[in-house]
Amino acid sequence: MECGIIGASGYSGGELLRLLAPAERVHVARVTANTSAGKPLAAVHPSLRGIYDLSFEEFTPERFSGLDCVFIALPSGEAMRVVPALQGRVGRIIDLGGDFRLGDAAEYATYYGRTHTAPALLGTAVYGLPELNRERIRTATFIANPGCYPTGAILGLLPALTRKLVRPEGIVINALSGVSGAGRSSSVEMSFAEVNESVRAYRVGKHQHLPEIRMILSAAASAPVSLSFVPHLLPVTRGIYSTIHADLAADVSTDDALRVYEQHYAGEPFVRVMREIPELKTVAYTNFCDITVTVDSATRKLLIISVIDNLVKGAAGQALQNMNIMFGYPERHLLQ
Amino acid sequence: MECGIIGASGYSGGELLRLLAPAERVHVARVTANTSAGKPLAAVHPSLRGIYDLSFEEFTPERFSGLDCVFIALPSGEAMRVVPALQGRVGRIIDLGGDFRLGDAAEYATYYGRTHTAPALLGTAVYGLPELNRERIRTATFIANPGCYPTGAILGLLPALTRKLVRPEGIVINALSGVSGAGRSSSVEMSFAEVNESVRAYRVGKHQHLPEIRMILSAAASAPVSLSFVPHLLPVTRGIYSTIHADLAADVSTDDALRVYEQHYAGEPFVRVMREIPELKTVAYTNFCDITVTVDSATRKLLIISVIDNLVKGAAGQALQNMNIMFGYPERHLLQ
Amino acid sequence: MECGIIGASGYSGGELLRLLAPAERVHVARVTANTSAGKPLAAVHPSLRGIYDLSFEEFTPERFSGLDCVFIALPSGEAMRVVPALQGRVGRIIDLGGDFRLGDAAEYATYYGRTHTAPALLGTAVYGLPELNRERIRTATFIANPGCYPTGAILGLLPALTRKLVRPEGIVINALSGVSGAGRSSSVEMSFAEVNESVRAYRVGKHQHLPEIRMILSAAASAPVSLSFVPHLLPVTRGIYSTIHADLAADVSTDDALRVYEQHYAGEPFVRVMREIPELKTVAYTNFCDITVTVDSATRKLLIISVIDNLVKGAAGQALQNMNIMFGYPERHLLQ
Amino acid sequence: MECGIIGASGYSGGELLRLLAPAERVHVARVTANTSAGKPLAAVHPSLRGIYDLSFEEFTPERFSGLDCVFIALPSGEAMRVVPALQGRVGRIIDLGGDFRLGDAAEYATYYGRTHTAPALLGTAVYGLPELNRERIRTATFIANPGCYPTGAILGLLPALTRKLVRPEGIVINALSGVSGAGRSSSVEMSFAEVNESVRAYRVGKHQHLPEIRMILSAAASAPVSLSFVPHLLPVTRGIYSTIHADLAADVSTDDALRVYEQHYAGEPFVRVMREIPELKTVAYTNFCDITVTVDSATRKLLIISVIDNLVKGAAGQALQNMNIMFGYPERHLLQ
Repeated sequence: MECGIIGASGYSGGELLRLLAPAERVHVARVTANTSAGKPLAAVHPSLRGIYDLSFEEFTPERFSGLDCVFIALPSGEAMRVVPALQGRVGRIIDLGGDFRLGDAAEYATYYGRTHTAPALLGTAVYGLPELNRERIRTATFIANPGCYPTGAILGLLPALTRKLVRPEGIVINALSGVSGAGRSSSVEMSFAEVNESVRAYRVGKHQHLPEIRMILSAAASAPVSLSFVPHLLPVTRGIYSTIHADLAADVSTDDALRVYEQHYAGEPFVRVMREIPELKTVAYTNFCDITVTVDSATRKLLIISVIDNLVKGAAGQALQNMNIMFGYPERHLLQ
Repeated sequence: MECGIIGASGYSGGELLRLLAPAERVHVARVTANTSAGKPLAAVHPSLRGIYDLSFEEFTPERFSGLDCVFIALPSGEAMRVVPALQGRVGRIIDLGGDFRLGDAAEYATYYGRTHTAPALLGTAVYGLPELNRERIRTATFIANPGCYPTGAILGLLPALTRKLVRPEGIVINALSGVSGAGRSSSVEMSFAEVNESVRAYRVGKHQHLPEIRMILSAAASAPVSLSFVPHLLPVTRGIYSTIHADLAADVSTDDALRVYEQHYAGEPFVRVMREIPELKTVAYTNFCDITVTVDSATRKLLIISVIDNLVKGAAGQALQNMNIMFGYPERHLLQ
Repeated sequence: MECGIIGASGYSGGELLRLLAPAERVHVARVTANTSAGKPLAAVHPSLRGIYDLSFEEFTPERFSGLDCVFIALPSGEAMRVVPALQGRVGRIIDLGGDFRLGDAAEYATYYGRTHTAPALLGTAVYGLPELNRERIRTATFIANPGCYPTGAILGLLPALTRKLVRPEGIVINALSGVSGAGRSSSVEMSFAEVNESVRAYRVGKHQHLPEIRMILSAAASAPVSLSFVPHLLPVTRGIYSTIHADLAADVSTDDALRVYEQHYAGEPFVRVMREIPELKTVAYTNFCDITVTVDSATRKLLIISVIDNLVKGAAGQALQNMNIMFGYPERHLLQ
Repeated sequence: MECGIIGASGYSGGELLRLLAPAERVHVARVTANTSAGKPLAAVHPSLRGIYDLSFEEFTPERFSGLDCVFIALPSGEAMRVVPALQGRVGRIIDLGGDFRLGDAAEYATYYGRTHTAPALLGTAVYGLPELNRERIRTATFIANPGCYPTGAILGLLPALTRKLVRPEGIVINALSGVSGAGRSSSVEMSFAEVNESVRAYRVGKHQHLPEIRMILSAAASAPVSLSFVPHLLPVTRGIYSTIHADLAADVSTDDALRVYEQHYAGEPFVRVMREIPELKTVAYTNFCDITVTVDSATRKLLIISVIDNLVKGAAGQALQNMNIMFGYPERHLLQ
C-alpha cells in the first residue's frame, strides 16, 4: 500500500512518520511541505535520520495521483484548498486538520476566522472517531480525523450522554494540553522561557474545538448539548488531560457508572476504563485513551477524567487507526 | 521584633526565611526542625548560605519563650501539639498548617484522617485571609494562615458570592498546583521522573482543603455553599491555577462582573483584577493573586480564574502579610 | 522464543516490556519483582495496561528454568546473587546491571561499595556493546550489558582512540543524564521540586561507570586511558549527552575526523555520525547513538559529542539488540 | 537617584525592574523599548502590574538627559549606536550587552558578525566584574557589564590562574545555560516543544563570549590563556552551570585549593566557596556565585564548578551591584 503525507514537516506529520517507520505493509511514497521543499526529511525531523530516504517536495495534486491513502497534516485553512484537487486522484483521504469536521460554513467562519472555500464538501467527510463511527469509516473515502481536545472530551462523555447518566446541558470541560497541540511554533508565547513553570487558560469561549465537541455530542445524545470548554496550555510536550463535570440525570453510584463505561467500551482496543485516576504520562507515545468516572453524591455530579496523547490518539495515531480500519488491517497495526 | 520558626526545614519554612532575609525590623531568633536538629540552616537550605548564621534546634516551648511572633510551618497534625504549649509564652502565633483552620473536630477527623488533640482550641484562631478578615487579624494573637488551594479559590469566589453574582450551589473548582504544595517529599510519586511530562488529579472529593473552602465561603456568603473541588498536580514547582465555574444568579455582562471584582478588591495591595487571562508564572515569587472573570452567556455561567504562588500568597507571604498587619508594618513590607 | 525479566518493576524493566510489546517472535513468559510480587504488571507500569496479562512473582531460579533468554534488570549488587543460580537452567542471560562488567573484584569493591559475592564469574560475561563485540555476542550465553554513561562515552571515543586521532591520556568526559538513569527513586534529592529548574554534578571522581569506561577503552586502544568523568543530573527524564574533549595526536581537520568516524561506523544500524550538533531529544525513545566530532585547531583538541536515550541504547534497547544478535534476528527487530 | 533603562522589554530589563521594585533610594524615571513604545510596562511584564506606573517610550537621547544612571539592556549591536549619544548627558552608563566588553574591533567583528560603529570607545568602559575591578568601578562613568557565561567562568578560574594553581593553556569550560540567556525569542529552536526534554551544545568554537573570557583571564593571569568553551542549552529558565577542567601547575590537594579560593574571595559578598557540589537552583533569583574545586590526583587536573543565575549575577543583579559600588550604597542593596 502506497501512502503520502501533505504537510509532513509539522509535529503531526512527524508523528505519522515515526509511527509508520516499522511498517511493512505501508510504504510512504511522498512527503510534501512547501516551506521545506527540497530539504531531506531528516533536516526537519532529525530523529528520522537513517530511517527514511525521502525529501520534502512542494505540493501538487499530480504528485499524489494514484496513491492508496493520503494524510493531510496541514494547518487549518489549507486542507480546504487541497482536498478538492485530490478527490478522484487518490484512494482515500484522511485529513488531520479542522477544515472538514464541522458541517456548517457559518460556524466554520465564526470559530476558524475565515471563509470556507469548499463549502460544498462540508459534511461529506466521515468523522474519524472509530469508537463512534467504525462501520462508516470502513467504507469511507474521506475522513475528517477528530481534533485533539474533541477526542478526549467526546470519548469521556459518550457513554454518559448516550446512556443518559448525565444531563446534556451545563457540562464543564477543563482541558489541559501539551504544547505540541499548537503545532511547531515560533511565537514568543510558545517559547520555553514563557511556557516553562507556567500554565494558562486561552481562547476561552472561542476555541475552534468547542463547536466540534458540541456537534458530535449533540448528535450522539440526540439532544442539544451545552458546554463550557476551557483549554489550558501545560508545560509538557504531549498529552491532553480532560476533567469533565456533568450533572447527574440518574441515581447511580460510582460503581454503576464505571460499569456503564466498561460496557460501552468493551472490545475497544484503545480505550481503557479504570478505577484509578489517569495520569497524562501513562498514555504518552500510545494510542490509548484512559478514562475514569466518579459520582459525587454531595453535588450530584459525575466527574469524568480522560487522557490521551494529543499527537497519537489525538492526531497521527488515530489517523492510522482509521487507515487500519479502512484497509482491513488489524486495528492495533503500528499502534502498539 | 524577634520571631521564630517551628518546622523551618520544609518549603514553607524556607520561603519564610527567604522573604525575611532583607528584613531590618524583624530578627529571626530561632529555627527548629526536629529531624535536622543540630544542622546549620544552610545544610538544608543551601540558597540561604551566608545570609543566616543559625542552626536548627529541636523544638521545646522554652526555646520560644518571649518571642514576639512565632510561625509554625509544620506538617498538619503537629501544630495541635505545639500550640497549647506556646500560648501564653509568645506574643503572636501564625500557624501555616491546617490544624486550626476548621471549626469542627469531626470534620477535621474526616478530612485529615486523625483525631484532633486540642479540640478546645478549634475556632479560636482568626482565619488569616487579610482580604476577608483584616480588622480581626490586626488584634489577633493566634492566626490560622489559609491553605494554598483555599487562598486561590476563596479570593476568586468572594466577590461573586458576597455580591450574589452567582448561586452558591454547584460550584466547580478545578485547581492545578505545583509540587511544592505537597512539601518536601521522598515518595516515588513525587519524583521527577514520575511528575515530569505528566499531570494528574488526586484526592478527588477527599482533599482536606475542600471543607476549608466550603466553610469560609458559606460564612462569607451567608448561605451553604456546595462545590466540587478537583486538585491536580502540575509539573511545575510553584503556583496554583484555579479555574472556577459557577452558575450566574444575576443578569450581568463580563464588564459588569469585572467592575464588581474591581470594586471589591479596590485598595487591596495584593489582588490584581484584570481583563487578561492570568498566567501562573506572572505571580511566581510574589504575594499577588491575579484574577479575571468572564461571563459565558450561552451557558449562563461565570468563569473565574485566579492564580497565586502557593509558597508566597498561599503560605509564607500571606503569613508575613498577616504579621505586617498585626505589628503595624506597611502591608507590603518584605513582600515586594 | 520464551523470555523472562528479573527486576521488571523498575524503569529498565518497564522499558524492556514497552519495547517487547509488539513482538511476535518473543514471548514474555515471566516477570519478577520482589517488592511488587503479587501485583498485576499494570499496577506498576500503568502504560502497559491491556497489553500484558502478567503479574509480578517473587524470584526463584526454578521459575525461569528452561527459558531461552533471561534479562536481569536489578539494581547493582543483586545480579551477583542471581546469576550463579540461573546458569545452566536458562539459555542466555543478559544482565543490564553493573555486577559483571568489571573484571576485577577489588575495583568492584572500590566503586560499587560492596564485596563481590561471585568473583569467579567476573570476566566471564561478554561486554554487550555490539559496535565493539558483535561477533563474540553472537555466541555468548552471558552478556554484561553496558552502562548508560559508558555506552555514550565509549561509542564517542572508540574511533578516535583506535584510529589514534587522540592521545589516550587526559580525556575529559562531561556527561549529562536524565533522571531515569538513577532508577525509580524515592529520595528527596530526586523529587521534582529539587530536580526541576536545576542541574548538578554528582559522584565526581567516584562514579561506578568511570572504571568501566576506562577498562573498555584501554583494551580497545591497547593503551592505558586516563580520563576525568563528571556526570551531571539534568531535569529531563531520558537521555545522556556526552561532551568529550581529547588532545589531538594527529594533524587532522574536522572533515578528516568525521570521515574516520563515518568509516568506523559504516554499516552500524544504530550509530549516526553527523556534521550537525546532536540534540538529546532526537534520540529519545530510539536505540540510536548520534555523534559529531569537531577539531579545535586553536587548542589542538578533538571535541566529540554523543547522545543516546539512556533507557534504550543505554539499557533496554541495547539488551534487545544483543538478544537479536544472539538469536539471529534482524538487528533492528523491535528497535525501530 | 534617578535612573533609566534602555531596552526594558527583554528579560534583563525585566529583571532590573523586578530587583528595583522595592528600591527607596533609586527611582526608575524612564523605560524605553522601541517595539513596545506606547505600551504600559505591565503589558510586557505582567508580573510588574501595580508596581510601576510607567509606559515604554521610544528611545531618544534627550529622554535620558540628566539621569544619574542609565542601564542599557539592548541586544548586542544596538548599544554602540546609543552610547555615543548618551555620553555627556547622563551620569553613569551601565551597558549589559556585549558591545563594549572586547577591546578590539577586529575581534568584535569576528565573533559578533558585524562591524563596530563606535570603535573609538572600545576599551574605554570598565569591565564591571566587582570581584576583579571593584576600585575602578567605584569611579567609572561607563561600565561594560560582564556576559553571563564569562561571569561564571571567570569567577571560577580567577583564583586558580592568578595564584598559579593551574596552567593557562588547555582549559576546558563546559557551560550549561538556561534559555533566558538567549533573550526573549520567537524562534522555533527556542520553543518549548523543542527545548523541553532536550539539551544541546551550540555555537561551538564561535560563541561571542569566548574572546571575552580569554581576554579577561589572560590579563588577570598575565599570560595568554587558551581554552575550549562549549556552551549548552538547558531546559531550565535561569542559570549557568560551568564545569571547568584545568591542568594543575602545582602539587596541591583539594583542601589546599579550597583554601586558596576561600582566601581569594574572603569578604566578597556574593561569592560562596564551598566543599559541596553546587546546584543551579541554589542561586536562582540571587546574585550569588557558588564555587567548588576538587583536585583529581589521577589526572593531575583541577575541577572547578561555578554556578550563577544568568539574569541576576550574570546580568541585572551584577549591574545593580555595580550601581551600588558607583553610588556608594551597600553592595547588597536590593540584592538580598
